[in-house]
Amino acid sequence: MNVDSILAHVDANLDESLERLFALLRIPSISTDPAYTADCRRAADWLVDDLATLGFAAETRDTEGHPVVLAKADGPAGKPRILLYGHYDVQPVDPLDLWQEDPFAPRIVTRPDGGKMIVARGACDDKGQLMSMVEALRAIKAVEGELPVPVTVLFEGEEESGSPSLPAFFAKSSAELRADAAFVCDTGMWDPTTPAIAMSLRGLVAHDIIVRAANRDLHSGQFGGPARNPNHVLAKILADLHDEDGSVTIPGFYEGVTEPSNAQKANWDSLGLTAADFLGPIGLSEPAGETGRTILEQVWSRPTCEVNGMSGGYTGAGFKTVIPGEARAKVSFRLVGDQDAMKLRAAFKEFVEARIPSDCSVEFIDHGAGPAFRVSETWSMLQKGAAALEEEWGKPTAMVGMGGSIPIVHSFKHELGMDTLMIGFALEDDNVHSPNEKYDLTSFHKGIRSWVRVFASL
Amino acid sequence: MNVDSILAHVDANLDESLERLFALLRIPSISTDPAYTADCRRAADWLVDDLATLGFAAETRDTEGHPVVLAKADGPAGKPRILLYGHYDVQPVDPLDLWQEDPFAPRIVTRPDGGKMIVARGACDDKGQLMSMVEALRAIKAVEGELPVPVTVLFEGEEESGSPSLPAFFAKSSAELRADAAFVCDTGMWDPTTPAIAMSLRGLVAHDIIVRAANRDLHSGQFGGPARNPNHVLAKILADLHDEDGSVTIPGFYEGVTEPSNAQKANWDSLGLTAADFLGPIGLSEPAGETGRTILEQVWSRPTCEVNGMSGGYTGAGFKTVIPGEARAKVSFRLVGDQDAMKLRAAFKEFVEARIPSDCSVEFIDHGAGPAFRVSETWSMLQKGAAALEEEWGKPTAMVGMGGSIPIVHSFKHELGMDTLMIGFALEDDNVHSPNEKYDLTSFHKGIRSWVRVFASL
Repeated sequence: MNVDSILAHVDANLDESLERLFALLRIPSISTDPAYTADCRRAADWLVDDLATLGFAAETRDTEGHPVVLAKADGPAGKPRILLYGHYDVQPVDPLDLWQEDPFAPRIVTRPDGGKMIVARGACDDKGQLMSMVEALRAIKAVEGELPVPVTVLFEGEEESGSPSLPAFFAKSSAELRADAAFVCDTGMWDPTTPAIAMSLRGLVAHDIIVRAANRDLHSGQFGGPARNPNHVLAKILADLHDEDGSVTIPGFYEGVTEPSNAQKANWDSLGLTAADFLGPIGLSEPAGETGRTILEQVWSRPTCEVNGMSGGYTGAGFKTVIPGEARAKVSFRLVGDQDAMKLRAAFKEFVEARIPSDCSVEFIDHGAGPAFRVSETWSMLQKGAAALEEEWGKPTAMVGMGGSIPIVHSFKHELGMDTLMIGFALEDDNVHSPNEKYDLTSFHKGIRSWVRVFASL
Repeated sequence: MNVDSILAHVDANLDESLERLFALLRIPSISTDPAYTADCRRAADWLVDDLATLGFAAETRDTEGHPVVLAKADGPAGKPRILLYGHYDVQPVDPLDLWQEDPFAPRIVTRPDGGKMIVARGACDDKGQLMSMVEALRAIKAVEGELPVPVTVLFEGEEESGSPSLPAFFAKSSAELRADAAFVCDTGMWDPTTPAIAMSLRGLVAHDIIVRAANRDLHSGQFGGPARNPNHVLAKILADLHDEDGSVTIPGFYEGVTEPSNAQKANWDSLGLTAADFLGPIGLSEPAGETGRTILEQVWSRPTCEVNGMSGGYTGAGFKTVIPGEARAKVSFRLVGDQDAMKLRAAFKEFVEARIPSDCSVEFIDHGAGPAFRVSETWSMLQKGAAALEEEWGKPTAMVGMGGSIPIVHSFKHELGMDTLMIGFALEDDNVHSPNEKYDLTSFHKGIRSWVRVFASL
């Protein structure tokens, strides 16, 4: 494959690439607001038409919600089939008055430092990112006359609403989705000049717990003392979850936790992130997690337990001397390595139940439970991807972890047995989900070039 | 004083006493609802007119809210002046559809067991109770030709809305309110056949605490681990407030706590209240407070710490993996004996502040703070009151404590230096503050007779 010619083609045709991206950005495909249902379909149809120009057999597939774009194209024999995933839906735009211009009138804005950026809702998340993959394929096809590999495309329209229709679609269409690997362009750079590949995602197990004591709210004057206060029971449970060193105290919690390799640790250390870098912007200074772990270890390779919500009794203005009948908390765990979500759920319940007085009760509401995801450091596509990025950006690729989850990547792994290469070009200041979302022109341009190099490396 | 003649007069004129009570009950003097402002004034005016028929110099006094009824009458020289306190306002009546009849159309209902009861909003709280004092004075005056003692009357119209205008009225009118003792008829019997005098009220100190960590809500995937979760900080503080034995751990907390006398304890033990009696109706069985204390000791003579409310993070339906920027709790203390409210407030703040990480902060919002109230066991009026009740009911008087506070009684003590005799005839099933409020005809009738005996004993 003549990579230099393809890259030159990308450079020469950037304006046309931008024009296509702008056409997609002009469609207000807000998935959470029913007023934009027709626009979501319009965005899906636009992508189908565009993919068809690249030779894809492309169509929309109806779901309970917004349609999925599914497209398939052949490529050179003997090459692995790649599933490209992205989402064409965008976040709502409120508060609209904080936008400097119409969120769906994309434009190029030049910053004081001379940098150019594409400003529009979806410019980064995820229209700009998904089009960088499409434009890379377009350039390869233009120069080479064919796609670099067999490609399947899955662009959904409900990512910003929690992908409610995707499980049913997966169940029905898994055979059509099978591929050798998935490429997802929905993550970020380490910093504006350092490319990154996300190698791992933490898993998640989440629960509501409801501690019940008296059969009604009590007056703390009449009953304070003898009557059990479920706020106290709950506070004790929540306080017991961590020890003085920030470790989680649930028996067996750390079973299945693996340590990153020395190479991995060295790559992380080379990024030079300090506690002040990480905590300063959010107004904190003292790392709170397990002692003896760096910030990056903590968010990328260590499991956590967080109380995401708690409520009990009177919480309004003024004061009410009530002993409530119940108190509630939302508790979630981030999992890493081979931690078993179901085993942890059982251990957590046992831990809680052991702390419930005999005349009180506890109810659990189970929310999602999914294990962590990670690719092997020796996965060939990972190594090829890292090398391709280094070539484009002139710097070693940061092999990062991600503290959160990307449900689709977990599904690819656990339902289709497929690893995912997560490469993205978002920057921290892209205002994703906020007013004045932008995507640097460099992210888009060098993003296309990066994908050209990644595809060429296969 | 010819007590037998007076009691015979009470018995013979019960229908007239009831008619007067019914006239007052027909006035919907709901203090919290501005729609009933004129009715509140009507109730005050009715009382002024009624007290005038007993020879009182009676008038309404305007406040920022509903008027106060202030009345004064002389009595035999050398007798102590008594301040009678009650309130003419009533609770709202919602939900109206749970009432069997119009809440302001008082009527006598006969129970299956033959017992008769007065049903109406305010029948017990407090119109029935305050009129039992007034009717006792009326009977004494009718038979003896004069009141038994010099009397000052203070009937307020905002008790059910937290008495917002009373502090200003107190400040302005304290000289007019001075008396040798106050009588309050707003409490209850121990049980339907056992009279009671409330000897003590617990004090109260209350605070909001707001723990602040990051300068915004964080995503627990991105930040979980290194970023301090204020829910955890708060849960630890709240859990630390009690030790395993249910004692409060704040240094110095028990300073000023006094033990009830042996006589007092014996009186309480004789009431035979079991944990099952107390906790069964609220669906509990295991006493939760300090170990080694009876139920009555706990609610009447021991201080407590209760978390009346707590909230932090996401508390709605479903799940949100947020690490909030702040978490809040409402914490109150019930005080007994000579515990110093201000000293305790300071100790509590120190306790909390010692548990705030260096990069977090805590804000306190102070709510009311007032010491406990109690009368000496040797107070002559207490002994006379107890003897008078025993004579009427044929059973020893229960010398009870009260777990809650009655702000006016604290004000009488701490602002006017005056003790209060708290006698009342409410029963547990009176539906005070609920639909179908009632007051047993026996409570009203024997209540009047009891007050006759109390006044006669002076």
